[in-house]
Amino acid sequence: MNAGTVFGVGVGPGDPDLLTVKAAQLLGKSRVVAYFSKRGKEGNAFAAAERYLNPEAERLKLVYPYTVELSSSDPRYVAALEAFYAESAALIVARLGRGQDVAVLCEGDPLFYGSYLHLHCRLVQEHRCIVIPGITSFAGCAARANMPLVSTDKVFAIIPGTLPDAELEARLKGGDPCAIIKLGRNFGKVKRVLERLGRARHATYVEHGTTQNEQISPLEGKAGDTSAYFSLILVPGVEPQPAAVEP
Amino acid sequence: MNAGTVFGVGVGPGDPDLLTVKAAQLLGKSRVVAYFSKRGKEGNAFAAAERYLNPEAERLKLVYPYTVELSSSDPRYVAALEAFYAESAALIVARLGRGQDVAVLCEGDPLFYGSYLHLHCRLVQEHRCIVIPGITSFAGCAARANMPLVSTDKVFAIIPGTLPDAELEARLKGGDPCAIIKLGRNFGKVKRVLERLGRARHATYVEHGTTQNEQISPLEGKAGDTSAYFSLILVPGVEPQPAAVEP
Repeated sequence: MNAGTVFGVGVGPGDPDLLTVKAAQLLGKSRVVAYFSKRGKEGNAFAAAERYLNPEAERLKLVYPYTVELSSSDPRYVAALEAFYAESAALIVARLGRGQDVAVLCEGDPLFYGSYLHLHCRLVQEHRCIVIPGITSFAGCAARANMPLVSTDKVFAIIPGTLPDAELEARLKGGDPCAIIKLGRNFGKVKRVLERLGRARHATYVEHGTTQNEQISPLEGKAGDTSAYFSLILVPGVEPQPAAVEP
Repeated sequence: MNAGTVFGVGVGPGDPDLLTVKAAQLLGKSRVVAYFSKRGKEGNAFAAAERYLNPEAERLKLVYPYTVELSSSDPRYVAALEAFYAESAALIVARLGRGQDVAVLCEGDPLFYGSYLHLHCRLVQEHRCIVIPGITSFAGCAARANMPLVSTDKVFAIIPGTLPDAELEARLKGGDPCAIIKLGRNFGKVKRVLERLGRARHATYVEHGTTQNEQISPLEGKAGDTSAYFSLILVPGVEPQPAAVEP
């Protein structure tokens, strides 16, 4: 068959120099480049990848129908997003059918909380899909904060801030090092859980890590109930304390 | 001060094309390149980075005193490794003092279970250390296995196979998607825990992922009690089942 291939291309956390050599070379050859964005913006994935794109490539911009206008649990939002992803997949399939390859840009790593997954799951059964991995946001931000993440026989967890308060607390009380992602409107809740557990004072807040808008500070220095969408908290592990001995 | 800078350079999971543009450019300019290796071998980090190195760069090979000759809990092993890392740091410091920068190659990401951390913790207090993030092994292997890792509000964990049996079981029974690393002699133990929990049949085994020696198979197809040092298991998440209703 002469159908085209979908490439899920990880573009990393934001700094264009953090694309892989493989991603940069692939984008230079790609004749169709698809990417998600908000209305009126090109978006972060496009910004990271722009310098590598073939100037003659078709730019297939996939514009989200909503961003913050509706709650993500609103049935209208869920239905609109479902239709949007189906329509986006159809736009890609049309090009594959003409024998064109399509490179889909994705912040961070495509298979790791990536927006590309919404397309992958709709395309992979019937089309050839190849993924180019990307630098994850937690690795990019840790490098900028110069903060060791994990070593030896410790477990490291990536925890979405969207989890309910009680589940966040259950996840965080064990003391493993972790990165907390998906902050935004969940920032205040997450910070309060970390404070309650005594873990806020060692944590680091990173916003737009590796980009020109980067902000890095101790978590305690970041006030307010919300944070940027592209932000995360790096929490170092807690060494187990010797058990208290009864006198 | 005119002292040199230490660069911890993530070289990714093995495929030379998976270095970042930033890492490739930095290595082309570096006049001293340090890397850990076993006796008689150049090692995986060197193999991934070799094509980018300045041919005139000094190659500072840091050869581990032991690999498998002694158990990692043997006090002689612990003492020898401690002396080795101290000596390695001193070799780097000597070059920093002459105003030379030193690029330290590191498989995967330097701050994420990276061998570079042994040097970072000995150098960062008194020397300028800059980290270039790398593609983690789990992201590289998932891309090759074409396997979504995690999405939405799920937690993802990276779990070392060195943990004791009971702790592995406690970590794995919750059903989160995860990657299990540091297999080698722990492979059989890890596989048996996954079998006991009914999670082995959906898991994928990847050895030397992204390299020419890559092997990918369902975990159930991988026999034996040991695996390659550079191997991992990707375990998809378990969707919560509706609670059973009493009749």
